[in-house]
This record gives sequence, C-alpha cells and structure tokens, in this order.
Amino acid sequence: MAPQTNRQVRLRARPEGIPQAAHFEIVAAPLPPLAEGHFRLRNAFLSVDPAMRGWVSAVANYSTPVGIGEVMRSFAVGEVIESRHNLYAPGDRLVGMFGWQDYADSDGTNVTRRVRETNLPLSAQLGVLGLNGVTALLGLTRIGDPRPGETVVVSTAAGSVGATVGQVARILGCRTVGITGGPAKVALCRDEFGYDVALDYRAEADLSAAVAAACPDGVHVYFDNTAGAVSDAVMPHLAVGARVVICGTAAIASWNPPPLGPRVERHLLVKRARMQGFLYFDHLDGAEQAIEQLAGWMREGRLVHREDILEGLEAAPDAIAGLYRGENLGKRLIRL
Amino acid sequence: MAPQTNRQVRLRARPEGIPQAAHFEIVAAPLPPLAEGHFRLRNAFLSVDPAMRGWVSAVANYSTPVGIGEVMRSFAVGEVIESRHNLYAPGDRLVGMFGWQDYADSDGTNVTRRVRETNLPLSAQLGVLGLNGVTALLGLTRIGDPRPGETVVVSTAAGSVGATVGQVARILGCRTVGITGGPAKVALCRDEFGYDVALDYRAEADLSAAVAAACPDGVHVYFDNTAGAVSDAVMPHLAVGARVVICGTAAIASWNPPPLGPRVERHLLVKRARMQGFLYFDHLDGAEQAIEQLAGWMREGRLVHREDILEGLEAAPDAIAGLYRGENLGKRLIRL
Repeated sequence: MAPQTNRQVRLRARPEGIPQAAHFEIVAAPLPPLAEGHFRLRNAFLSVDPAMRGWVSAVANYSTPVGIGEVMRSFAVGEVIESRHNLYAPGDRLVGMFGWQDYADSDGTNVTRRVRETNLPLSAQLGVLGLNGVTALLGLTRIGDPRPGETVVVSTAAGSVGATVGQVARILGCRTVGITGGPAKVALCRDEFGYDVALDYRAEADLSAAVAAACPDGVHVYFDNTAGAVSDAVMPHLAVGARVVICGTAAIASWNPPPLGPRVERHLLVKRARMQGFLYFDHLDGAEQAIEQLAGWMREGRLVHREDILEGLEAAPDAIAGLYRGENLGKRLIRL
Repeated sequence: MAPQTNRQVRLRARPEGIPQAAHFEIVAAPLPPLAEGHFRLRNAFLSVDPAMRGWVSAVANYSTPVGIGEVMRSFAVGEVIESRHNLYAPGDRLVGMFGWQDYADSDGTNVTRRVRETNLPLSAQLGVLGLNGVTALLGLTRIGDPRPGETVVVSTAAGSVGATVGQVARILGCRTVGITGGPAKVALCRDEFGYDVALDYRAEADLSAAVAAACPDGVHVYFDNTAGAVSDAVMPHLAVGARVVICGTAAIASWNPPPLGPRVERHLLVKRARMQGFLYFDHLDGAEQAIEQLAGWMREGRLVHREDILEGLEAAPDAIAGLYRGENLGKRLIRL
C-alpha cells in the first residue's frame, strides 16, 4: 500500500551558533499525489554533517539558509518507490539533497548521483563515498597537493573527513600525523586509520611542542577542520612552501562577533605558505572520479571507514549538536 | 688617491621589534688591500626597507640574522672603483647586498645585477627597478593572479611596493582601491598613482564599511603589507575565489608573543579564498624580466615612483624606525 504520511524534521527557529534539538520539530504531513515529472523516493539513510550549522545560519554564507518551517536540508540516500519522471524508475537507488524526512518528491534537480557501487554498503554513499570522502580526496589533492615523503597533519583526524584524508595521504606516500581528542579516537587513528603519529589534544600539556616533535621536517600539508587551538598549535610549524587546507571550523561555536586568534600572516610570509578554503560544491567536476578511486581503495581493503548510526527520525533534531559535543566515532548517519 | 677608510653602520644590539637608531653605531674602519678575485665598489645609494626589521631579528626567519658587530645588511647600488675580479671592471655599475657602508669589497657572490637602464635614474635600481618593484609585479601577478575587470585592494598603497602594485594592477586592467594613512598619501594615491579610490584609514570612522562601499563586487585581490587593522577591515569583503598576497606585516610591532586578530578561516572557507606569503628571494628567476617590464612602463610614462632620499650615512641608524613611524613619502634611500 502506498504511504499516506511523511514525517519531516523542520527548522523551527534560527540558531545562533550550533543548532540544538529545540531548533527543530518533527511534523507528520500528508503526502500529496505525485506530480507529473517527479519521482518519490524513500530515504534509507540521512546524513548529519558539521556543515549543517552553516546551512541554518542567517550569516552570509555559501548557500541560501534553510527557511523557518522548511524541511532540514541534508544529503540522503534512498530508493525510488514511484515515478512520473523519465530518468528514474522504481528500484533506482539515488543520493541527493533529499532532506530530513521519510519520503522526498523530486523533479531530479536535487539528485547528486545514482548509486553504482552495488557491492559496497549503501550507507557509505553518505560518508566515504559521498561528501566526506570526496571532500577528503579532492581537498587533499587539489588544495593540499601532497607529495610523497611529505608530512601531512590532519585535525579532527578520526572524523569522517579527517580519517579519509589521513588514509589517502598515506596511500599517496606521505607521513601522516593525526590530531584528535580522547584515547578512543587516538587508538582509532593509530590502529584503524594508520596514522604514523596520533596526538590527543586533550592530553598534551603542550600541543605545539608535540606537533613539533612529531614533524621534525615541518608540516608540509595541514588539513584543518577546526580553526581553533589545534590550528594555533600547528601553524608555527609549517614547512617552507606549506599548504593549509581550510575545510571546516568545528572548534568555533560562533563567528558573530569573529573570535580572536593568533595572527597567521607572519607564518604565511616567512614560510611562503598558502592557506586556502575548500568547498565541496566547487569541485563537483571531480566527484565521480574521486568516488571511483575511493571505492577501488575500499574494495582493496586499503581504505576503511567508521560509522555512527542513529536509529530513526526522532534522533535527528539533536544529531548536529551531538557532533559538536564530539560524541560520535565515525561518520554520523540516521537510519530510517 | 685611493680611499683610506670605510665608514660602516654596524649592528650594536639586537632589537626586540623595530630597530631604532641606538641599535646601530657608525665606525670608521681602515680599508684593507683589495684581495685577489675581489672588486671594490663605492656605494652611491643605500636602501632602507621594512624587511630589515626581520634581518636583525633573532626570531627564526627566512634569512640568517645580521650578527652583532656586523655591517648592516642592505641592498645598495654603486660603481666599481678597483677590481681584481675577472667579471667586473672599474666603472661598472652594480646592484647588490653591499651593506650600509661607503665601500664594499666583494667576490661577486652578493651582486644582484648589473645596471642596464642607463637612461633611468640610478636610484630607481633600489626601488621600482629593484626589490620593491619586482616584489610588486611578481607578488601581484604570481600570487594575486589579477584578471581584467577585477578589484585589487592595496594596503600601504602609497608605499614603494604598494604604489607599484596599484599602478601595475591598473595597467593590467583592474579597478584599484588603495588604503593609506593621511591626506598627503591619499592625494598621492589618487593624483599620481591613479587609484580609482583612495581610502584614509586614519580618517575613516568605519574602514570596513568604506572598503565595502569601494568594492561593490567584493575584493578579488588583496595585496597586503600590514597584517593589522587594515587587513581586518578588508578580509570580510573578499569575493568568492579571492587571492590575498601576504607581502609584509608593517602594522605589527612585535611577533613575540604573536598578536591576536580576528580569525580568517571562515572568510577563506566561505569565499574559497587563498592567502599566501610572497618572498622576493623565491622569485629571482622572474626578476630580470620583471625589471625590463617595469623599465618599459617607466619610459612610456605609465609607471611613476616617488623617492624619499636621506643625505649621508649619518641618517642610516634611524632610517628604519622612521619607516615604521610612517614619515616617508616614497621609497626611502640614503645618498652617499
């Protein structure tokens, strides 16, 4: 029997800083008849990403903010259950911006890709084979430009982006140093993600000295997701000609007003270093090839990933805040 | 008659921050006989550059610090008066790291170039045809990568580097916005260096708003020599894909401890912008061609420059501090 209602997680209020459970509400809405030229998809997994904080922020950003009362924007993967669209048929498995809801009606414009990796888990489409993995591979190679023998330092080293950055850098012949928080993540970095050195920023009395000791030739590539105290400990140790990839700012709760930090200009000048922002959406041209490369390494057993799967739509409202509390080990997903 | 003594400006004490007159002493030393394989040059003009602060700093830097008791390192231009070197003969005019002194004996390793522009003033070799001009042209083109129609913002816009950056950007088809201090420099920027807009950071109640108004399409290239409050006013207005050239840090008196400023990571991420240090000595491969290009524009009257010439070696000890007091209008030189 066809589904009658669609549960949706909608934005109820605009957060300052990190969105909390109270900023969302779950609403059950009747499903309208499927419009001509559209298909209906049942979401299997919803994505939970740090970038979502930006998507609900009113501050000028790289995407239009989610409106109050709208379904929370998110990547999701699911299966077409009904179609009046000439490109998609029931049974097709698709990745797209389908939102935090049970069912998505789409005219196809929010489809990211068709799932081709039938011998890999569907959930991987939202992590290592999705935004996170593509960000890791293209951010590292296109902005970081690592060369064999160089030292690559990764903040949020056990995270879904960072863990892939570290593994890809190692596959490309680099020495890898991961910075993460807590003994469980340090163990993951060392034992599963193969970092040459894993540093616990919570346990180190002098993180800057620990970075210096771990990087005797300096830091050639710094892949950053934090923009906070961890970066402040890494920047003084850049090697001449270093590349800093700015991929996220997870350590900063609010940019209004902009927080202060040690100025970076002198490091960039003395080391003739480069600091550059990376945004996935600018690099869609390379995504398909990146996914093929990542899938290949997964099948060869050279690239592993961890997932943190929450059960049911009820888990969604608090899921972003939980990311910023650091409670997940691996890519956070919601299984429907 | 051959000269008997050589007056030298030597580093007497190592400064914290900006070197002052008291950090130097003038000593008259007897000239030794000229060694085989060396030539002797009489300096005509000595250079005074903001970068000299770094050359006498004990903090790890891109060059070995000048030692206590050593002649102050500097660019200079002069004429060979005696030679036991097979490449250089009396009458040759050379640019090199000849130091703050009347005479320099050299084995040729500190020669930067032979003066070829006989129809342009010799002093220009230390400014618009020297380190400053080459830094401006190569920093702007190699790091800033300006395209016609883009907006280029220059801090220290009336300085010897900045004024050339502004004029070259205009020659390359860009809109130019100069930021400088005081009405005299604003007038210079507008009337001599051809900036489309010249802003006085001392007079603007809200410099950030003034930059926004002057750059309705955003800042595509920001050429910075300050690393201070001026940069903090520019960074929020970067255009998507902007390039920030870090060429100097004149606004910062001391980097020990590192001063705090608004964090830049979010701007770099949201605008997918790049911030990169430029150091002249990495770009020597392009210097000769850059000088030919700059000399050509000078002869065509498209590129002008200003000089601030101090008279006599006695002016040297206080000359760097004077730069940081902002007392010069144009490239500072010492005429011997």
